[in-house]
Amino acid sequence: MAAKHQGFCDLGFAKVDIDRKSRRGFEEVVYCPGKTTKQIKDICRKLIAHKQNLLLTKLERGAFIYLKKTFPKLRYSPLARLGYLNIPSKIPKKGFVAVVSAGTSDIPIAEEAAVTLEVMGNNIKRLYDVGVAGVHRLIGKLEIINKANVIIVVAGMEGALASLVSGLVKAPVIAVPTSCGYGANFKGLSALLTMLNSCSPGVTVVNIDNGFGAGYFASLINK
Amino acid sequence: MAAKHQGFCDLGFAKVDIDRKSRRGFEEVVYCPGKTTKQIKDICRKLIAHKQNLLLTKLERGAFIYLKKTFPKLRYSPLARLGYLNIPSKIPKKGFVAVVSAGTSDIPIAEEAAVTLEVMGNNIKRLYDVGVAGVHRLIGKLEIINKANVIIVVAGMEGALASLVSGLVKAPVIAVPTSCGYGANFKGLSALLTMLNSCSPGVTVVNIDNGFGAGYFASLINK
Amino acid sequence: MAAKHQGFCDLGFAKVDIDRKSRRGFEEVVYCPGKTTKQIKDICRKLIAHKQNLLLTKLERGAFIYLKKTFPKLRYSPLARLGYLNIPSKIPKKGFVAVVSAGTSDIPIAEEAAVTLEVMGNNIKRLYDVGVAGVHRLIGKLEIINKANVIIVVAGMEGALASLVSGLVKAPVIAVPTSCGYGANFKGLSALLTMLNSCSPGVTVVNIDNGFGAGYFASLINK
Amino acid sequence: MAAKHQGFCDLGFAKVDIDRKSRRGFEEVVYCPGKTTKQIKDICRKLIAHKQNLLLTKLERGAFIYLKKTFPKLRYSPLARLGYLNIPSKIPKKGFVAVVSAGTSDIPIAEEAAVTLEVMGNNIKRLYDVGVAGVHRLIGKLEIINKANVIIVVAGMEGALASLVSGLVKAPVIAVPTSCGYGANFKGLSALLTMLNSCSPGVTVVNIDNGFGAGYFASLINK
Amino acid sequence: MAAKHQGFCDLGFAKVDIDRKSRRGFEEVVYCPGKTTKQIKDICRKLIAHKQNLLLTKLERGAFIYLKKTFPKLRYSPLARLGYLNIPSKIPKKGFVAVVSAGTSDIPIAEEAAVTLEVMGNNIKRLYDVGVAGVHRLIGKLEIINKANVIIVVAGMEGALASLVSGLVKAPVIAVPTSCGYGANFKGLSALLTMLNSCSPGVTVVNIDNGFGAGYFASLINK
Amino acid sequence: MAAKHQGFCDLGFAKVDIDRKSRRGFEEVVYCPGKTTKQIKDICRKLIAHKQNLLLTKLERGAFIYLKKTFPKLRYSPLARLGYLNIPSKIPKKGFVAVVSAGTSDIPIAEEAAVTLEVMGNNIKRLYDVGVAGVHRLIGKLEIINKANVIIVVAGMEGALASLVSGLVKAPVIAVPTSCGYGANFKGLSALLTMLNSCSPGVTVVNIDNGFGAGYFASLINK
Amino acid sequence: MAAKHQGFCDLGFAKVDIDRKSRRGFEEVVYCPGKTTKQIKDICRKLIAHKQNLLLTKLERGAFIYLKKTFPKLRYSPLARLGYLNIPSKIPKKGFVAVVSAGTSDIPIAEEAAVTLEVMGNNIKRLYDVGVAGVHRLIGKLEIINKANVIIVVAGMEGALASLVSGLVKAPVIAVPTSCGYGANFKGLSALLTMLNSCSPGVTVVNIDNGFGAGYFASLINK
Amino acid sequence: MAAKHQGFCDLGFAKVDIDRKSRRGFEEVVYCPGKTTKQIKDICRKLIAHKQNLLLTKLERGAFIYLKKTFPKLRYSPLARLGYLNIPSKIPKKGFVAVVSAGTSDIPIAEEAAVTLEVMGNNIKRLYDVGVAGVHRLIGKLEIINKANVIIVVAGMEGALASLVSGLVKAPVIAVPTSCGYGANFKGLSALLTMLNSCSPGVTVVNIDNGFGAGYFASLINK
Repeated sequence: MAAKHQGFCDLGFAKVDIDRKSRRGFEEVVYCPGKTTKQIKDICRKLIAHKQNLLLTKLERGAFIYLKKTFPKLRYSPLARLGYLNIPSKIPKKGFVAVVSAGTSDIPIAEEAAVTLEVMGNNIKRLYDVGVAGVHRLIGKLEIINKANVIIVVAGMEGALASLVSGLVKAPVIAVPTSCGYGANFKGLSALLTMLNSCSPGVTVVNIDNGFGAGYFASLINK
Repeated sequence: MAAKHQGFCDLGFAKVDIDRKSRRGFEEVVYCPGKTTKQIKDICRKLIAHKQNLLLTKLERGAFIYLKKTFPKLRYSPLARLGYLNIPSKIPKKGFVAVVSAGTSDIPIAEEAAVTLEVMGNNIKRLYDVGVAGVHRLIGKLEIINKANVIIVVAGMEGALASLVSGLVKAPVIAVPTSCGYGANFKGLSALLTMLNSCSPGVTVVNIDNGFGAGYFASLINK
Repeated sequence: MAAKHQGFCDLGFAKVDIDRKSRRGFEEVVYCPGKTTKQIKDICRKLIAHKQNLLLTKLERGAFIYLKKTFPKLRYSPLARLGYLNIPSKIPKKGFVAVVSAGTSDIPIAEEAAVTLEVMGNNIKRLYDVGVAGVHRLIGKLEIINKANVIIVVAGMEGALASLVSGLVKAPVIAVPTSCGYGANFKGLSALLTMLNSCSPGVTVVNIDNGFGAGYFASLINK
Repeated sequence: MAAKHQGFCDLGFAKVDIDRKSRRGFEEVVYCPGKTTKQIKDICRKLIAHKQNLLLTKLERGAFIYLKKTFPKLRYSPLARLGYLNIPSKIPKKGFVAVVSAGTSDIPIAEEAAVTLEVMGNNIKRLYDVGVAGVHRLIGKLEIINKANVIIVVAGMEGALASLVSGLVKAPVIAVPTSCGYGANFKGLSALLTMLNSCSPGVTVVNIDNGFGAGYFASLINK
Repeated sequence: MAAKHQGFCDLGFAKVDIDRKSRRGFEEVVYCPGKTTKQIKDICRKLIAHKQNLLLTKLERGAFIYLKKTFPKLRYSPLARLGYLNIPSKIPKKGFVAVVSAGTSDIPIAEEAAVTLEVMGNNIKRLYDVGVAGVHRLIGKLEIINKANVIIVVAGMEGALASLVSGLVKAPVIAVPTSCGYGANFKGLSALLTMLNSCSPGVTVVNIDNGFGAGYFASLINK
Repeated sequence: MAAKHQGFCDLGFAKVDIDRKSRRGFEEVVYCPGKTTKQIKDICRKLIAHKQNLLLTKLERGAFIYLKKTFPKLRYSPLARLGYLNIPSKIPKKGFVAVVSAGTSDIPIAEEAAVTLEVMGNNIKRLYDVGVAGVHRLIGKLEIINKANVIIVVAGMEGALASLVSGLVKAPVIAVPTSCGYGANFKGLSALLTMLNSCSPGVTVVNIDNGFGAGYFASLINK
Repeated sequence: MAAKHQGFCDLGFAKVDIDRKSRRGFEEVVYCPGKTTKQIKDICRKLIAHKQNLLLTKLERGAFIYLKKTFPKLRYSPLARLGYLNIPSKIPKKGFVAVVSAGTSDIPIAEEAAVTLEVMGNNIKRLYDVGVAGVHRLIGKLEIINKANVIIVVAGMEGALASLVSGLVKAPVIAVPTSCGYGANFKGLSALLTMLNSCSPGVTVVNIDNGFGAGYFASLINK
Repeated sequence: MAAKHQGFCDLGFAKVDIDRKSRRGFEEVVYCPGKTTKQIKDICRKLIAHKQNLLLTKLERGAFIYLKKTFPKLRYSPLARLGYLNIPSKIPKKGFVAVVSAGTSDIPIAEEAAVTLEVMGNNIKRLYDVGVAGVHRLIGKLEIINKANVIIVVAGMEGALASLVSGLVKAPVIAVPTSCGYGANFKGLSALLTMLNSCSPGVTVVNIDNGFGAGYFASLINK
C-alpha cells in the first residue's frame, strides 16, 4: 500500500522500486555483489509480492541455492550468473538479436547478454568464437548476422570484432568489452578503448563485462 | 566502373567506399582531421560523382569556405562543425529523437548529434542546459522527453545527467561524454567513466565528444 | 608524564598522540590495517590510560574479538568495521546529519560514516538506497534531507547522486565515492572523478571508501 | 512570469535557474568557458532582471571588457578571473575563513576562493606562501589560523600543506589542489591524490584549480 | 682519426657514432626534436665526413631548408618529415614490404615507414585507406598483401586493422599505432593497447607514431 | 567435411580454425585461460582429427594432467606452461634464435618463447640472467648473440636490456616485457613503456608476459 | 675459476655476479620473488663459495626456514623480510642514518631499509610514527634528526612527511613511498607522486616499498 | 628586522625564507613559473638585502632581461634556464660530480643540473650523448665516470642509461627522467618508471625534467 503511494517499498537497507516497470518498461533488476543473500531474498520477496519479474545479475551459485529454497521456481544460468523468474505472459518479438562473441573465453559475458534478452522476451541467435584471428568464420555467418535487428558483439583482448562487424551490416551494434586477456589488456581497458574509438559508426559501448546492460539495451531497441 | 566492380574508388591516399550505402544504409562519412583540404575535396568529388550524400565531420570553417567554391550547394553548421550536402528524397521518420544537453558549453557536441540526425532524415527536439545542478529544469521537460523514440544525452564535467534521464524513461539513452570541464575531468575521462558505470540500465556510450556517432546510432534505431 | 610533556607516548612502533584532543577537538583515531593486533592493543591501552575515547577504523572482526578480551567495554559495528569505546559525557548536538547512500552495496561505507558521527556525539538520519536509477525514492525523502545540517552522500558505480542531492538543498554535501561496481569503475575511480567534477557547487570529496573521513568532517561542521 | 512558474528562464541555449537562490541559498553561478560572450551577456541580463547577484567564474579579461559595456557595475578580479555584481544587502558573517596558499604560484586559485567568499559575504584572511619547504612560516601564522572558522588550503606540486595544517587545528580544512608544478605533477593529479589520502582527518577536497568550489563550500559552513 | 679509434666523434653536445654501420648494419639515424638546427648541421657534417648515409627523423621543413644550404644534395619528404642523403651503392632487395594504412589521416606515419624503407634499399608497395570500416577494400588488395615479405600496418583510432591483416597472411606484421583520433583515443593509447593485445599471433608493435622504427625493423627482416 | 568447406569446425562454443595452417603457415594455437578443460579437450580432438599440431598456451598443470589421459602423447613444459603435440615432419631451420632474459625471475616467460620456437622447428640458444645490473655478463656472451638470426629479449622491472642488446647487434630484437617487479612496475607497464620507447632502432614489442607471441613472431622471421 | 675469468658463475638459470663487490663496493643482492627456493639456495652456495656476504630481499619466512637448513648461520628479519649472512670484518662508519616512518603501518618497509643499512655496516637510529597528523612528534625528535648524515623517510598514504622533514634539515633525504593506504592511494602511487613533486629540494625517491633500495643508497652516501 | 625575528620577510604574495641557509645549508631557491616578473624582482630584492645568493629556476629569457635591469650582476644560462647571482666566498669542493646525458636533446635538463652544481660550488664533468644505442661511447668514458663522487644521469625516451651506469660504478647515481620523446613516452612517464624500477641498486630518482633537484641533491652528498 505504502509502496503504491510512493512507488517503492522501504526495507531500510533497500527501497525496492515497484514503480520501475510502469516508468521504464521493465522491473527493477537486482545487482547482487555487495548484498547479503538475506538482503537479496528480502528484495525478491517484495518484488514477487508486487507480481514483478525477477532478474538477478552477477549472482553466485551458492546464493542461488540459498534463494531456491524460498523461491522454488527461481531459475539460474550458471554460465551467465543470472537468476530469473519470469511470468510467461510476454509475447516474443519478431526478429532476433544476434549475440556474437570473439572467443570462447568471452562466452560467460555473451551468455549474460543472451539470457537477459530471453528473459525480456526476445529471440536470439548465438554466434560464438568468430574473432578476427580467423575472419572467414565471421564471413561464413554473415548471412545470419545481416538478418538481425540488433547485434551484440562481445570481445576481450583487443576487441577489434565490434568495428569489423559494424562495417559489414546495417543493424546497430552494441559492443561489450570483456576483461579476457592479460598484460596490457589492463582488465578490459584495452577492449573498451578499442570499441569507444571504433572508426565505423553505428557502434555504442557498455561497461566492461556488462553483458546484462547490452542485453537490456538491445531489448529496448529490438522491435 | 572500377568502383562499381570493387565497391570503392581508389584515389591513392583514399579508397572511397561507394558501396557503403547499400551495405550499411548510409554513405561513407568523411572524418576531416588529418586530411588536407585538397584530399577532402577529391573525396567529395568522387562521392558526388556516385550520387552519394555528403557528411563531413569535425570540419574547420576555413576548409568549408575552400570547399564551398567547388561545391556551392555544400552547407555548414559552424557550431556542429559539420559540412553536408544531401539529396532531398529522404522521407522524414515518424516520431523524434530528443537531444538533451547538460550545459550550454556542451551545445557544440549536442549540435553535432542533432545536425547528423537531421541530415539522416530524423525529426529532433533539442533540450539544452537541463543538467543536474537544477533538476527541475529537466523535470519541467519530462513530458517531451517521454515521447521521444530515442534520447541522446550530452554532458561534460561529471556527466551525471545520462543516468538520471535513463532512470525516468522507457526509451533507450545514448550518452555522449564531452571534454567540457577542467582539472580532474581529464579531458572528458570523468564523464566517460560516469556514463559507462551508469547504475541505470538502458544506457550505452560513445567516444568523448563524438556527437556524430551518437546521432548516427540514434538514427539507426529511430523507426 | 613524559607524554604530558611532549604530547605523545612513545611505544617505539607508535607515538600515541595524547595531545590530539586539545589540539584538534577529538582524540587520535587508530587506522588498523598494517598494524598487528598486539600493536593495536598497546595503543588502546595508552589511550585509555590517558582517559581518551577510542575509535578504531577498518578493524577486522577477528581483531575485535582479540581486543574485547582486554577491553570488555569495547564495542564493534561489523558492518562499519569500527571499534569504539566512548565516555558518555558528550552532549548530543542539535540538528542532524543525513547519511544518504545510492545503493544497498554502499551501506558498509555509509555505516562507517554514520557510526563515526554517533561516536562523536551527532544525531543522524540514514537514507539508504535512493540512487538515481529511481529518483522518486530520493524525492520522496526530500523533506527530511532538506532539514539536515550536513549531508553525506555515499555512492559507487557512477556516483551521480552527490551532484543531484547538492542541486536540491542548501546544506553542504560531503561526497564519499565507494569501490562498488566493476569494469570501468576501476575500484572507485569512476565515482571519485564524478564527485570531484560535480557541476553543482557545495560538494567536497573524501577518499574512496573513506566513510570515517566523511563522518569526521561532518561532525566538525555540524553545529 | 514563465520563469516564476517553472523556476527557470528558457533562452534556448540556456535555462537560467531563477529558483536557485530560494532552493540552494545562493544564485546560479555562471561557468564561462565554452560559452560565447554573447551567451554570457544574455544569461546575465536574465539574472539581473530577476534581481539576482552575479558571479561569473573563469571569466577571461576580454570577455569582462565586453560585458562591462552592458553592465557598467560589473566588477572583475583579474587574478581570480571572477566577474561579479552583488547587491549590498548581505550582512557580513562573524568570524572568518582563512585562505592559505602553499606558494606564490598558487595565488590565482587562492584568490578565486577568497573573492568568492567575499562576494558571498564572508570575512577572510589571506595567508600566502606558507608551504612546507619552510614550515616556520606556517607556525608563525598559527595563531591566526587557529581562530578561523574554516580553513581553505590551496597547494600545487606535492600538496602536502593540507595534511599539515589539518594536523594543527580544530577547524575543518577544505583542500584545493592546483595544477602548479611540472613533470610527475601531471597537471595537478599529484596534489589531488595527496589531499585525498590525507592521513589527518578533517580534510575534504575539491577539483583541481577549483578555488570557486572551495570558497562556495566554505561559505556554506562558515556561520 | 680519434673517431676511428673510439668509434665516435665527440662534438661535446653529441658523440656521433661512426661505428654504427659496422656494428648494426646501418648508420646512426638522427632524431631531430630537441636539437638545434646548428647541432643537426654539425652532426650531419661529421657523418658525411665519414662517408655515412644520412637519415634525419621528425625533421621540420624550416630546419630542412636551413640544412639544404649546407648540404645541397639533402632530400626531404615533407609528409614523412624525413631528411635523407644516401649513397646509391645499395642493391635493392628482392621482394617487397607492404605498407598498409587504415585511414588517410594515418598516411604521414605510413610515409615515414615507407621512405625509411626506401632509403634503406627496400622495394615497397603502399596500400592506404583500407581500414575495417569497409573491409572489402582490404580484401580487394589481399593478393598483393599476400605476396609481401613483411607487412607494416599503420592505424590510429581503434587500431583494429593490425589484427585483421595478421589473421589473413603468413608474413610477419609490424603494427604502428598512430595518434589519429580524439577523446578516449588518448593520443594513440587506444590503438597501442589494441595492437599489443592482438588475438592473432604474428604481430609486434612499435611506439605510437614511430613509422621510422617500423620501417627500420621491417628492413632488418626483409631479405 | 563441413570444416573442409568453410575452413572451420563449429563446436558451438568454438569454431576451430582448420584453415589456419594453409592461410597463416601454422595451426591455430589454443589460448587456455577462460576455457574449461572439457572445452580444451574438444578443441584438441578436432585439431587432431584434422592432423594438426597442437600448441596450448598458459595451460595449467592440472588441466594438462586431465588432457594427458585422452591424448597420451601430449607433452608439457611446466615452466613455460605450454602443452604441445607436434608431428615430427618439420625440418629444423638453419641458424638460431637467441632467447635472452634479464633475470632469473623472467625465465618462465623466456621459456614460453623458447618452447614455442622449438615446437615450431627452430634452433634456439638460451642466455638467462644477463641483465644490466652486471653488464659484463652480457658482454661475455656477445659472440653468441651476434650470431643469432633473431634475438628475443625478456625483461621485467625497468626492461632496459632490450635497448642495450639492440645497440650492439645487427639482428632484429623482439622485446617481451614481463610483470616481474613491484611498486611502480605496475604489473609490467614499466618494462612495456621502456621497450616501446627504445632509443635504439631495431626493436619491436609484444604484450606483457607474451612469451608465446614473441616466439611465434621470431619463428616467422627466422629463415 | 671460470668465474674469476669472466666475473660471474653460470648456473644456467642465473649468472651469479662474483665481480660485483670489486666493481660496485657491495656484493650482488638476491631479489627473491619469482625464484624457486632451490634456485635461491644454489645462488647462495655460489656466493658463499666466493666468500661473499649474502643479502636476500623480499624473502618469505618459509623460504628462509628451508635455506636455514643448508646455511645454519643465515639470519632473518621477519619484519623486513630480509635474509642475510655477513662477514664481521666491516668497520662501522661514524655518524648515523636516521630511518623515519610516518606511521606504524610503514614499519615493515622502514625495517627493510634499517636492516639493509646495518648489514652494510652503518649505525642507524629509528624514529617511527612521526607523521604529519601530529607534527609535534617530529619536532620533538628534531634534534636527533638534525644530527643524521642521511635521512630516510618512509611514508604511505599522502607521503607528505618527506617534504616536511627535508624543509627542516641540512642532510639529504631519501624518500620511500609505501603502498599503505587504500582507495585513491592506488597502491602507493599517491605517496610516490607526492615525493617526486616535493617543493623542498634535497629529496630523491626510490620505488614504492623499496626499503632495500633506500638503505643501499643511504649506505653509499653515509661517510 | 621582522625577518630576523621570524626567519622570513612577508611580501604578502610571498614569505621570503631568510632562514633557509642556516637551516638547510643553502638559500631559498626561487621557482619562477606562475610568478610575475614583478614578483620575482621583489623576492630577489629581499634576498639580496639579506645578503643571500640567488638561484632562479625555469626562468624565461624575457624575464631575465627584465631582471637584469635591476640586478646588473645577475647571470643567466639560457640552456639551463637558470638565473643566478652568487657571492664568490665559496671554496670549491674536492672531487667532482659527473653529469651524464643520454642524448643531445636531454642537454637542457643536464645543464640545469650542471649549472646548479657550479653555483653551489662543485666541480663537475659533463659527459653528453652517451646513451645505450651506442654503449661504447659510455664505455669509452668509464674511467672518468669511475672517478666521480656522485653521478647524475639525465635521460628521456626509455631512460635505460641510469641502470646501466649504476651497474658499472661505486658512486651513487641520481637519475633525472626527461620529457624527451613522443608517443608512449607520455611526457617523461616512461623514463620515470624505468628509473624507479632500476634492477641495479644505488639509484634514486627526482621529478621529470628536474635537473635543478638532482644538482641540489648531488651537491649535498658531494664532499
